[in-house]
Order: sequence, then C-alpha cells, then structure tokens
Amino acid sequence: MKQNIYDNPVFFKEYTNLRKTGVTYNDFVEQPALKSVMPSLDNKTVLDLGCGTGQFAMYCIQNGASKVLGLDISRNMIDQAIKENNHEKIEYICMPIEDLELNNLKFDIIVSSLAIHYIKDYSNLVAKISQFLNRDGEFIFSIEHPIVTARKDMNNWVKDHEGNRLYWALDHYQEEGIREQHWYIDGVIKYHRTISTIINTLIDNGLVLGKMIEPQSITEGLEKMPKLHNEERRPSFMVIKAYKV
Amino acid sequence: MKQNIYDNPVFFKEYTNLRKTGVTYNDFVEQPALKSVMPSLDNKTVLDLGCGTGQFAMYCIQNGASKVLGLDISRNMIDQAIKENNHEKIEYICMPIEDLELNNLKFDIIVSSLAIHYIKDYSNLVAKISQFLNRDGEFIFSIEHPIVTARKDMNNWVKDHEGNRLYWALDHYQEEGIREQHWYIDGVIKYHRTISTIINTLIDNGLVLGKMIEPQSITEGLEKMPKLHNEERRPSFMVIKAYKV
Repeated sequence: MKQNIYDNPVFFKEYTNLRKTGVTYNDFVEQPALKSVMPSLDNKTVLDLGCGTGQFAMYCIQNGASKVLGLDISRNMIDQAIKENNHEKIEYICMPIEDLELNNLKFDIIVSSLAIHYIKDYSNLVAKISQFLNRDGEFIFSIEHPIVTARKDMNNWVKDHEGNRLYWALDHYQEEGIREQHWYIDGVIKYHRTISTIINTLIDNGLVLGKMIEPQSITEGLEKMPKLHNEERRPSFMVIKAYKV
Repeated sequence: MKQNIYDNPVFFKEYTNLRKTGVTYNDFVEQPALKSVMPSLDNKTVLDLGCGTGQFAMYCIQNGASKVLGLDISRNMIDQAIKENNHEKIEYICMPIEDLELNNLKFDIIVSSLAIHYIKDYSNLVAKISQFLNRDGEFIFSIEHPIVTARKDMNNWVKDHEGNRLYWALDHYQEEGIREQHWYIDGVIKYHRTISTIINTLIDNGLVLGKMIEPQSITEGLEKMPKLHNEERRPSFMVIKAYKV
C-alpha cells in the first residue's frame, strides 16, 4: 500500500494553507535550488514525478517546454492542479509515481520535487527513470537531506532550557528504511537512505552525476523567515542533477 | 605555511605507535573501503598523495603496479617509508602534495588516503589531479566525512551522565574552512568542506563520479574494536572514486 498523506483531509488542508502563504522552505530554499539547475526548457518534454498542484508543470510551460506529464498519487492534488494550473500542453495523471509504465515514450527532462523520500523502492524507481529518459536527458530532483532523515527520534534540534538550538542530533545514519513522523497528522512515513546509496544507485543505472546542491535560503527567505538561518547549520534538502549518456 | 604535524616528534611517535597496533579505524574502516574500489593495478602507474610510511605504495606494487610515486610532506614519514617499504619500482618524494608539478608526466591511478582534509585549496589540488591523470585514469581518495568535520566544537558525541553516546552533534555544516582540534598535540588543522563542494569540484574539473562509499567497519573490526559499531550511527569517512574522460 503506497502512502497517500495528501488525500488525508486534515493534512491536505494544513498543507495547502501552508503552501499558499508563499513563506515556506519550498519557496526560499528548495525551489530556488531546483530551478537553478534546470536546463533550457525550450521545446523540451518534461515528466514531473509528484507534481502536486501543478505549479512546477506550469513553470515549465511558461519557460518553453513543449509538453509536461504530471503524476501525483493524490486525487486532491491532481484536482487542484487541473483547477489552478490547467494548460493544453500539460497532462495530469493521478497515479503513484512508482507505478508509471511508459510504452517507449521518453522524456528530455524528468523532475521531482520533494517526493522521492516517500518512495520505498528507490532503486526500482531510478531504473525506470533512466529508461524513461532520452539520451542526454536530465533527471533533476530534490529530497530531504539524509542528515535530516537519519535519526529515528523526532526532535533533532537539541535546545537549551531557553529554547536556543544547541546543535542538530544525528544518529542511525547507516540504518536505511522507514522514518515515521508527525507532520500535521501521525504516521507520515519517509524513507531514509544514505548519500552514497542515493548517488551510487543513479550511477549504477547509467546516469552521470552533473551537480549536487545542499541549498541554503535565498536572501528574501532570511528576511521573511529568520529561522532559515538554521540551514547554515545543517541542510534540510539535497538537489541532484544527473544525465543519461 | 603548509601544516606538517607528522614531523612534530610527539605526534609522530604517538601516531606511529597507534598505526603499528593494527587495531585502528584505518585497518577496519577506511583501508578496506579504499581497497574495495581499486581497479586492477596490473601494469598501472600510481601516484600516492600523502603516502605516509609507504604501506599503500607497497600494496600497489604487490598487486601488479608498474611504478608508484609517493609524496608526503613529512620527512619522518618519507624516511620511514624508505626504510620499511623500499622497492625499485617505488619513488618517494618529501614534498607538500599541493606543490607537486609534473612535466607532462601522467598516471593511470591517483590515490590519496586521509590526506586531502589537510589541504587548504581543494579546488586547485583537484585541477592538478585531473591534469595528472591519463584518459580513463582514476582518482580514488578517502577523507574525513563532512558530517564529522562540520562542527567547530570538539566533543561531537553527546553523552549521558554514564558516558553512553546519545547522538552525534552536528553544526556549522555550511561554514567551510579551518577546524582546529587536539589530536595528540594541540592545533591540528583540518578543512571542512560540504559534500556538494567535494563532489562538484571533481565534476567541474572534468572528472566523472564512479562511486561513493561511506564505510562501516569490517566484521573483524567490530570484534576487536567494539566502538566501531558507532560507525553505524554516523560515518567517519568518505571514499570517492572518480575517473577522467
């Protein structure tokens, strides 16, 4: 059974309210990094794995992409995407990303924003992605940083009695697998993998590493969300770009 | 002034005594990982940056290498290497590794065991290494893991009042630069760099990432040094293999 927290009504409401503020880790840390490594989208075909409400799909079209296929496991997300980011060049499909089968259809760019840490079988997914890419095609994705997902306990910032963050607690790094946490609702499941697993799996599937980013906040974020200074102390995300040869 | 702790008599004595025990992190964690990614050495030329007492240089010759050039900043180390691991196919030179100039001489394999975190200008070193490699040549090196070098404070394992290790304290990850610590003597200087800097610098200098290892202990190590179980909790080292195209 694949996890679908975004169709939990409590989670979906909280999550969409958060994203609408425009003052999030996504806006100031993850999305700027992801966009910074996007190649020219001119006339490119794009597959968006975990497309959510379709904002990135629309961004691709606005930047010249000829076609975007967006996949998401959540009916709520896909409905919202069709409502808010509809376009004749975008197709949205409600489906778990690991179930995707493409009959010889290939893409120039495969992108995935903060979805792959929800996927149990990373190796199988990467094998498919490699197969779905045209030659010289690029796979660009963001995930939660293994430094952040490693520890099984939940409270990773250790604080003094005044609430100041002393340091980030790291543990269980080599124990890959399920990490369960409370994020609006109980039982949100993510999968921790080591950095070497994340990278070697790409290489083993015929992809060449092009760039890795451990992003910090853009300046606007530091002004509007001062806690983003903590990204200097430990990275929340990792952005990777790899290409097929 | 390049750091040369190994010519400090106190450090050198303590360090060589430690290595002679054969019961160290090197023996059970770092060296097995480094050797696991070595290609066939048959008839290959090898440059060993930070060769120490020449054990790895001799290992290369014993495994078929046609020639090894070993460099080390420490006179003590080079003298010991000439005494203990002398061979007609090995040349030892006492020189800071970042000062090396080679007049069009190139190597099939460049190896470096736990030396590069002492080097201030990583980018310049990698540019040289890329230039010193034959086409399809491989650069294989181990360094202290950025998870370990990140925090400026010294006591990274946070312990309870009975001395049990609770978790590893991480901080200052994005602040690259000097980390000073006490290791037998005061003022041992290492350089912290992020994982993305380490990897992107290789890529920017024309190298392709072939494999990354965040090694754990081999079984024998867990028996002889039970504290090596802590490597499951956070990695001490990173081993990287990259090749020139």
